[in-house]
Amino acid sequence: MDVRIGLIGAGWMGKAHTYAFANALMAFGPESGKPIFELISDIDEGAAKTACQKLGFSRWTKDWKKVVTDKNVDVVDIATPNIFHYEIAKAALENGKHVYCEKPLTLSFKESKELAALAEQKGVINYVGFNNVMNPATHYIKDLISSGKLGEVMTFRGTYDQDMLLDPELPITWRHITKYSGSGALGDLGSHLLSVSQFLLGDVQSVNALSKTFIEERPAAPGSSKLVQVENEDFITIIANYKNGAVGTLSSSRVATGRKNYLFYEIQGTKGSVYYSLERLNEVNVYFTSDKSADRGYRTVFLGSDHKGYKVFNPASGIAIGFNDIKILEVHELLSAITNNTPYICDFEFGARIDQVISAVLKSAAGKMWVQVREEGAVSR
Amino acid sequence: MDVRIGLIGAGWMGKAHTYAFANALMAFGPESGKPIFELISDIDEGAAKTACQKLGFSRWTKDWKKVVTDKNVDVVDIATPNIFHYEIAKAALENGKHVYCEKPLTLSFKESKELAALAEQKGVINYVGFNNVMNPATHYIKDLISSGKLGEVMTFRGTYDQDMLLDPELPITWRHITKYSGSGALGDLGSHLLSVSQFLLGDVQSVNALSKTFIEERPAAPGSSKLVQVENEDFITIIANYKNGAVGTLSSSRVATGRKNYLFYEIQGTKGSVYYSLERLNEVNVYFTSDKSADRGYRTVFLGSDHKGYKVFNPASGIAIGFNDIKILEVHELLSAITNNTPYICDFEFGARIDQVISAVLKSAAGKMWVQVREEGAVSR
Amino acid sequence: MDVRIGLIGAGWMGKAHTYAFANALMAFGPESGKPIFELISDIDEGAAKTACQKLGFSRWTKDWKKVVTDKNVDVVDIATPNIFHYEIAKAALENGKHVYCEKPLTLSFKESKELAALAEQKGVINYVGFNNVMNPATHYIKDLISSGKLGEVMTFRGTYDQDMLLDPELPITWRHITKYSGSGALGDLGSHLLSVSQFLLGDVQSVNALSKTFIEERPAAPGSSKLVQVENEDFITIIANYKNGAVGTLSSSRVATGRKNYLFYEIQGTKGSVYYSLERLNEVNVYFTSDKSADRGYRTVFLGSDHKGYKVFNPASGIAIGFNDIKILEVHELLSAITNNTPYICDFEFGARIDQVISAVLKSAAGKMWVQVREEGAVSR
Amino acid sequence: MDVRIGLIGAGWMGKAHTYAFANALMAFGPESGKPIFELISDIDEGAAKTACQKLGFSRWTKDWKKVVTDKNVDVVDIATPNIFHYEIAKAALENGKHVYCEKPLTLSFKESKELAALAEQKGVINYVGFNNVMNPATHYIKDLISSGKLGEVMTFRGTYDQDMLLDPELPITWRHITKYSGSGALGDLGSHLLSVSQFLLGDVQSVNALSKTFIEERPAAPGSSKLVQVENEDFITIIANYKNGAVGTLSSSRVATGRKNYLFYEIQGTKGSVYYSLERLNEVNVYFTSDKSADRGYRTVFLGSDHKGYKVFNPASGIAIGFNDIKILEVHELLSAITNNTPYICDFEFGARIDQVISAVLKSAAGKMWVQVREEGAVSR
Repeated sequence: MDVRIGLIGAGWMGKAHTYAFANALMAFGPESGKPIFELISDIDEGAAKTACQKLGFSRWTKDWKKVVTDKNVDVVDIATPNIFHYEIAKAALENGKHVYCEKPLTLSFKESKELAALAEQKGVINYVGFNNVMNPATHYIKDLISSGKLGEVMTFRGTYDQDMLLDPELPITWRHITKYSGSGALGDLGSHLLSVSQFLLGDVQSVNALSKTFIEERPAAPGSSKLVQVENEDFITIIANYKNGAVGTLSSSRVATGRKNYLFYEIQGTKGSVYYSLERLNEVNVYFTSDKSADRGYRTVFLGSDHKGYKVFNPASGIAIGFNDIKILEVHELLSAITNNTPYICDFEFGARIDQVISAVLKSAAGKMWVQVREEGAVSR
Repeated sequence: MDVRIGLIGAGWMGKAHTYAFANALMAFGPESGKPIFELISDIDEGAAKTACQKLGFSRWTKDWKKVVTDKNVDVVDIATPNIFHYEIAKAALENGKHVYCEKPLTLSFKESKELAALAEQKGVINYVGFNNVMNPATHYIKDLISSGKLGEVMTFRGTYDQDMLLDPELPITWRHITKYSGSGALGDLGSHLLSVSQFLLGDVQSVNALSKTFIEERPAAPGSSKLVQVENEDFITIIANYKNGAVGTLSSSRVATGRKNYLFYEIQGTKGSVYYSLERLNEVNVYFTSDKSADRGYRTVFLGSDHKGYKVFNPASGIAIGFNDIKILEVHELLSAITNNTPYICDFEFGARIDQVISAVLKSAAGKMWVQVREEGAVSR
Repeated sequence: MDVRIGLIGAGWMGKAHTYAFANALMAFGPESGKPIFELISDIDEGAAKTACQKLGFSRWTKDWKKVVTDKNVDVVDIATPNIFHYEIAKAALENGKHVYCEKPLTLSFKESKELAALAEQKGVINYVGFNNVMNPATHYIKDLISSGKLGEVMTFRGTYDQDMLLDPELPITWRHITKYSGSGALGDLGSHLLSVSQFLLGDVQSVNALSKTFIEERPAAPGSSKLVQVENEDFITIIANYKNGAVGTLSSSRVATGRKNYLFYEIQGTKGSVYYSLERLNEVNVYFTSDKSADRGYRTVFLGSDHKGYKVFNPASGIAIGFNDIKILEVHELLSAITNNTPYICDFEFGARIDQVISAVLKSAAGKMWVQVREEGAVSR
Repeated sequence: MDVRIGLIGAGWMGKAHTYAFANALMAFGPESGKPIFELISDIDEGAAKTACQKLGFSRWTKDWKKVVTDKNVDVVDIATPNIFHYEIAKAALENGKHVYCEKPLTLSFKESKELAALAEQKGVINYVGFNNVMNPATHYIKDLISSGKLGEVMTFRGTYDQDMLLDPELPITWRHITKYSGSGALGDLGSHLLSVSQFLLGDVQSVNALSKTFIEERPAAPGSSKLVQVENEDFITIIANYKNGAVGTLSSSRVATGRKNYLFYEIQGTKGSVYYSLERLNEVNVYFTSDKSADRGYRTVFLGSDHKGYKVFNPASGIAIGFNDIKILEVHELLSAITNNTPYICDFEFGARIDQVISAVLKSAAGKMWVQVREEGAVSR
């Protein structure tokens, strides 16, 4: 089936989505949905025009509203800065379009919840791009938990650390301003950790957080001596209770000296445990108490044909897949949902739950207290 | 100089201390203090008698009070269950003895503070056996911080995980009963992590903790069907502020599936970072932002002749040292302090600070709130 | 510039090439050469037809000779079983086509040398698909050597181990028959190791090898009780002298229990050293003697923006690339050579040198003696 | 039973032996043999006298012949430079003493064989100090092989690399002179690798080797401009056939940039495999094909109570042991053999087999040919 794409945002992420769609077609064939690059928009007319040609779209516009109303567009793909997600997604849903929105869904739980409800009502596919959920490693770990091999999950300990913003000479960007990005490390990086935690352990019940901005001011522009205040956190650390009784320790830093893409987590269950680092994307470490005592140790399992999603990329086990391959798996899940109505994980409801936890965490950090993550919004215990 | 030892407690730890003393003499020579195995006591007369002969002590007794008053004893070595530390240490100090006490110092900050003050007043050597502080790796990391090579320390993230008590069939012991052991994982394992944190980053200012007992009941005896309640935590997780502005995330579990002796921590500074795991005792991982960008990465530095304490064990770098070697370094520091009045780190004041943090953490976990770690005791913010 | 592709072989590798071409266009743009999927052939008519449609080729044929003579084909892409490489490549060259041939170039040094000379004479681009050479990690290591950072190279120690053929129940295939595949582990896996060694250290001067077939017979077909003899080696180990004075230890196994894609090598120079494993594709371990003694250790450098080829895939360092990304880099080098006459590494001369070493190694293993790797062919010392 | 020790050589190794004896007594008790430090000798009278007092020996002499004839000496402990091993061991045996000789046994297979025969004839305990054989990790791996868990062993791949002699400014020592040390890296480091290989896989049948001296001259003394020729190899690499059908790849370097104590080996069997590095002394990596496919990977097994020899040092698993602990296990095996006639591994026959392989390897490297390792000595194939 043809899936006609209306892409909004012609920057790096828009490009990445387009490559992923093209590869998904090559890898999975048209049975899962054949992406048609129908219409691309960007607020910058030149960018829209150039990208249209380079990425192989049929038409372009500088007005995103034309995309959400275009009768030849099946799915609206939102790859804009975060602050525009809500408005665009809402309009797309109201026009009955399927929506594929980069993470985070919106900048607030309230907005995300509204979108989730609207999508539900409209009966369209609504997908948020939490790519780590589609990692074959994550699915392998999910299987280990679901099958009972790890027993009852007791603890989740994780962090998402990058050092990209460590240099204090790097100038201020929209990421540092609350109005445009909401939180800092929490929303940008921590949300990925939360998406994995949500998929693997389910809902968080209550949180208590401590945040810190280590670099309080940044140059207004590269080399500028004018300093502008950084409004959101460089670092956050969270202790949490899960509804299933597990206890969590989660943190994230965007000034994490030495760490490049260190999304690390460890899950300890009563019968086994597992740990994983995105810096070593292709290996999962798993431990079973059922192994003979003398031979017991963490197994370093390389991703391979036994793990969901891997096979399409490589004919044999142990050949490395990369970040872009995971994005292909994500886009395939979207296409397949649109075409064959297959179930998918990261719907708007899922995205809203992440935003709900984020909201509770921010409230906790600000109020220095435990906060319950409740359906009606984040409130103090 | 002869250092006449009066050992109280003839169990495994007493034996380990004795071996360490004998090895310290062999390794460092009598100039640092020659241990004389003068008197050993154990509440179990048979144990005292047997150990006296096996370990090469001159005399034995079943009454520890005889040890603290014996005029031929220079240093009282306390290797009893934790609950007796306070009473014995106090008596030893009152008799003007040097005191070497296994960690933790006591079961409460109040008692530890009292002992520290008394030791100060008496002017004797007062040493708590936090062995991880004497690890050459720890000293190397301390040097990295002190020299400014890591810049300003931003974060400390650590955990001390073991799975020794994972099996729910393991019966109840004194470690599970508050009266005898105070806290659970926190005091037993977490205190080691806190000792390293205290040495490397200095004082903790405030804490917020969450604790959990996963195995709520245990058999009264091996195989017994009678179940007894476990009174203290299997797991604790803490977020913390340090006085120097750093932020901490610390946890500990005694039911940590898959982890054997996983005292892990990572310190991120503005110019460098370091991480370390006790399961790989001989290697320190360190990162410097001053390295050329293309060649930047964590260095795996094996302990060797350049690192404090290593040289006495091996003539060349890269030859593994073990836990018992570190205990020798600890005992040597004690002997040297007694003999040559050299400075040492883990005095009773140091031990009391650990107990103070523990006290604040327990208060926080119980009250579900932030607690300040203040001189006058742990109080709510 | 349009680069019109004539693909021969519609199997897995042909598909992989096609994806790589499509992605190279998306990633690098048409300036490096725009691949046009002109003509595809497969001996199996159905396969040719289906692949033509699925992969987006314009025309198909079952006769490879039509491809090499087609006036609308610029480059002949050979993705057939190894035994056909020579004949096809020769015909393509004779028709003045550029040639892109999967590794190995041919089954003998003599044939490869002939092709290299013919390509030279025709003045066309002639490329062999040794993908590991295009790995950003390999180029980083090459830079370390070329810049003198490792000093004089003393030793190369490497192995390429996979366990895909460990199971003795796996039936015989063309890979086990000399006539079709030449050598066993050596040509299939070892040739990759040799390609890296050739690129990094230059020519091998003499070799001494020992080979072994551990599984001497395999079922004629899955489940069959009829056993057929395996004709080539499961395992080979080689000691070698390089022209530059370095000494090599190289091995390869296709029955290497536990190893999935373990292309590992270590290069020790007088001033530094490096080791690398393809199972951890994104990390290079490098050691410099110029580091301060106490801080000296192997650095784990994650691939990133500083390393050649990485940037096109990810906007920031530390995000994992995979095998397929490396194949894109390979295809881009080919397109760029055709379009812009940029220099490239893995030409037929390069491929012939690998085949020359293989030839010498096989002679050594058979004759149990040292063999010189000379221009005129492999002869005994 | 008292075991009266006559130690010859008061240097670092003599000291290490003495500590090991003292610790063996503490750890295992007198039932395994109580070491009595009876007599110590050193060619340097002052050294003998000082060591006698420091190490707690009863008497000293400068004449080793007095030790081998002393009626109050039960075991002669030879910790002299290698060149004196033969003469002293022979004299000790002729006087009916038990002999404990540091590795290597002698500088030639012929001498070692003679000593082994003499020891057999005299019926005394004859022990060579190949400490790596007593490593609990080695015994665990031996058990894995013996129990059939790894299936048939196919390959052994190992190296022993250190970079202690990398600096060309380091002056010449007896280790560089054939007369005093025999071979270079091979005898000093490679012999350890061979001892492990001998214990785990049994006899080597034939070898083919390549050796190299990278630093051909060294200063006559520190800072001297006078250069002296280095007579033996810095590096050696070997391919080998084992009697059991396995194939070996072994190497060793004393100028191995970046490697501190890298005794690494990997053993691949038809049902499992194992690899180990002495730089991570406490962890063994083991892989079983019997594990479920999706969960298959190398297990990192930390040494613990399940592994032979560990328990005496630590009450719980996962606590690091070090090099000196392994030397204690070695000495305990010796004492136990003397006292209780328990079987032991590293007898003179074992030592002679190592020397026999070394002899064959040197012959191969010199003659550039395969050499059989035969009972009657090393001869060409």
